[in-house]
Amino acid sequence: MTGLQRVLVANRGEIAVRVIRACHVAGLEAVAVYSDADEHARWVRMADDAVHIGRSAAQKSYLDSDALLKAARTAEADAVHPGYGFLSENGAFARAIDEAGLVFIGPRPSVLEQMGDKAAARSAATAAGVPVVPGTDPIDNPEDVARLAPEIGFPLLLKASAGGGGRGIRPVRDVDELLEVLPTAQAEARSAFGDPAIYLERAVPQARHVEVQVLADDHGHAVHLFERDCSVQRRRQKLIEEAPAPGLREETRKALASAAVRLAEHVGYRGAGTVEFLVDAEGNFYFIEMNARIQVEHPITEMITGVDLVAEQLSIAAGRPLSLAQESIERRGVAVELRINAEDPERDFAPTPGEISELRLPGGPGVRVDTGITQGDRISPFYDSLITKLICWGDDRDQAYARARQALAEFHVEGVASTTGLHRRLVTDPELTAGPVHSTWLEQRLG
Amino acid sequence: MTGLQRVLVANRGEIAVRVIRACHVAGLEAVAVYSDADEHARWVRMADDAVHIGRSAAQKSYLDSDALLKAARTAEADAVHPGYGFLSENGAFARAIDEAGLVFIGPRPSVLEQMGDKAAARSAATAAGVPVVPGTDPIDNPEDVARLAPEIGFPLLLKASAGGGGRGIRPVRDVDELLEVLPTAQAEARSAFGDPAIYLERAVPQARHVEVQVLADDHGHAVHLFERDCSVQRRRQKLIEEAPAPGLREETRKALASAAVRLAEHVGYRGAGTVEFLVDAEGNFYFIEMNARIQVEHPITEMITGVDLVAEQLSIAAGRPLSLAQESIERRGVAVELRINAEDPERDFAPTPGEISELRLPGGPGVRVDTGITQGDRISPFYDSLITKLICWGDDRDQAYARARQALAEFHVEGVASTTGLHRRLVTDPELTAGPVHSTWLEQRLG
Repeated sequence: MTGLQRVLVANRGEIAVRVIRACHVAGLEAVAVYSDADEHARWVRMADDAVHIGRSAAQKSYLDSDALLKAARTAEADAVHPGYGFLSENGAFARAIDEAGLVFIGPRPSVLEQMGDKAAARSAATAAGVPVVPGTDPIDNPEDVARLAPEIGFPLLLKASAGGGGRGIRPVRDVDELLEVLPTAQAEARSAFGDPAIYLERAVPQARHVEVQVLADDHGHAVHLFERDCSVQRRRQKLIEEAPAPGLREETRKALASAAVRLAEHVGYRGAGTVEFLVDAEGNFYFIEMNARIQVEHPITEMITGVDLVAEQLSIAAGRPLSLAQESIERRGVAVELRINAEDPERDFAPTPGEISELRLPGGPGVRVDTGITQGDRISPFYDSLITKLICWGDDRDQAYARARQALAEFHVEGVASTTGLHRRLVTDPELTAGPVHSTWLEQRLG
Repeated sequence: MTGLQRVLVANRGEIAVRVIRACHVAGLEAVAVYSDADEHARWVRMADDAVHIGRSAAQKSYLDSDALLKAARTAEADAVHPGYGFLSENGAFARAIDEAGLVFIGPRPSVLEQMGDKAAARSAATAAGVPVVPGTDPIDNPEDVARLAPEIGFPLLLKASAGGGGRGIRPVRDVDELLEVLPTAQAEARSAFGDPAIYLERAVPQARHVEVQVLADDHGHAVHLFERDCSVQRRRQKLIEEAPAPGLREETRKALASAAVRLAEHVGYRGAGTVEFLVDAEGNFYFIEMNARIQVEHPITEMITGVDLVAEQLSIAAGRPLSLAQESIERRGVAVELRINAEDPERDFAPTPGEISELRLPGGPGVRVDTGITQGDRISPFYDSLITKLICWGDDRDQAYARARQALAEFHVEGVASTTGLHRRLVTDPELTAGPVHSTWLEQRLG
């Protein structure tokens, strides 16, 4: 499987740009794909070749497995990088790529399916000796729900087994509320994820969202690249991420990292992945889920370690053993990522698609910009509303946040409403900059 | 002297932007200055305040010591950062700042004068046990020149004592040529540097230009931050710099660094400075000069060490002891800087001032952009023709150059001719990427 030469980048936006850069730096050709809406997009211009895959609606293009597979064949690609979102964690897609004799740049299909099923992922974690939030197996009748809930304890979370990324979760205060919302939750789980299965999980109050980056090769070796704190969330969408997680005890940090590596090794993971945990105020931690792909916030890990995670994905996919020994991976300083979206915080974060008539990006020491657009491009209503990620590194948290403030002062976008103003307030917020904050902090802040 | 609050940035272009960023990140206010031509410049917009200092010709503004001093008083600045070029190494300017009760962010005036006088700098190096190129004291009559030249050996270099930055130097093959050019060289030295003194120095063939970054506080402590190779030059103007210098033996690297620290300590240096050396194929090295200021190529040192050199300048100027112990300064990876100029390589690198009608900058992992302009700004005929510096870091030389190639592929400028195409050829040149090259390599390459 060695010797990839031509990679189909089966995604769009900033992650398509990111993957094309990594391909070129590794000496590989990159083939872009695009929907009607994306015909003139930045990543299409950057790639060595580009294939039209369908209509603007994602279901008709970036979520169309057959169209992507056909594009890979047409372009004579020998590998497919799925990016994040869309089909990146879809076992059937990965299997179809495998069966077409191409390399899927990610985990094996069976591992994708295991990690995509929350109950199966919990079982794997438990088997690997990784603590999970006390909870149940999937259940489907009201009697079992009423019987098991008190054992978990209230408040608890009612979760869709096939959910993920923060979707399909609702907090419940007592048995009456639980029984009342159960039918709706099952119906929604079926329609959103194609699977009505739900389960119960204890709510961990004042918890932080901390995740560990892992890399594993196809030869049984796995390493971690430290952790990220992603607690600054609104409706489970991350707005600011930071690496390393602030204010963790060293023993907690190490225990999280080794738990993540244990899970990766236990399931025979391959590629880049993230193991997500809840961490409570005492430093107890609980596995939530594993994201079996590169993540939006991967650059902050790259900034503190110097490791190019997408380059490692390509190397692993080419069958090479990990070049990184655990003891050679060192971290330096602190990195913060700000996700600037075309959304209007004044109107409940409604997306504000439109043409970016002016875009001035920051630069200088410690500042990295990852964006899928250039001035004059459009933020499409069909896809996520990310304008750019501003990633700021500093020797310590103070310098990282000071550089983030300066980067935001230099950043200027016109043509659409954006979250820039909110980010400017957040990076001067004394609670956030003193850190850490827990994952409901931002919503309380926004009121 | 502790507690700077408001810094006058007595410079223009990308270094003004760089210093303003550092001031803001350090929690200081920054006051910009501008000539007529620069009224709407990027650094003027970024600063907390801005003062008009005169006409477009540098002599009437950025080189006008009185105008700058007056601006500092008007703006109620408590310190002056001179950037590089212009008055940055002018002892009289530094002294005037001192005498006005303001802080000059740089070495003491007497040290500036010592390092600005090549003969005095050579003497200091010798006294500090730092090897210098065999050469003479300043001489002024043809008899002494004819007598001393054979002791130095031909070919040799005839140098202006007050020259610097590669100016005021001419290679000479034999005594006849030497005596022939002597009067002209003296006359030129007088008109260019205000001092007709010249001296002779042995030419070191196939030499590389390697320089060591130092930082010294006002309390007698000095450290080095490793070296940079700046051998890719055309008419002594650097086009590409790299840190660390490729292919140096570890003992040479260490000896260079400790020689630089010795010199800094010997002269009572304060602030950021660079000690420049010639290094021959055997690893012998010779002091050339000390640049008593921040340098254009300082970002590559920042990329490999994580140290913010301008922040350190501010801290030292505030009277604080160095926060960096030598053993805590570690380097990681390799960084390359490409200076993209508005010059036309097809027309003997003639400057091509004009409006930058389009400017697309690269981004992503390992890429830093330092520029003084935004799209729509003008490259002025009055000043240097730098459009942007692209600084690319990699885990090793291969990755650093691969990222430089990708950054150049993404970089796009319209409205003026530029050196982008030349840089694209250079970063794929097998001799340069195999490295090292010596300082006449590029001129031979250009033919």
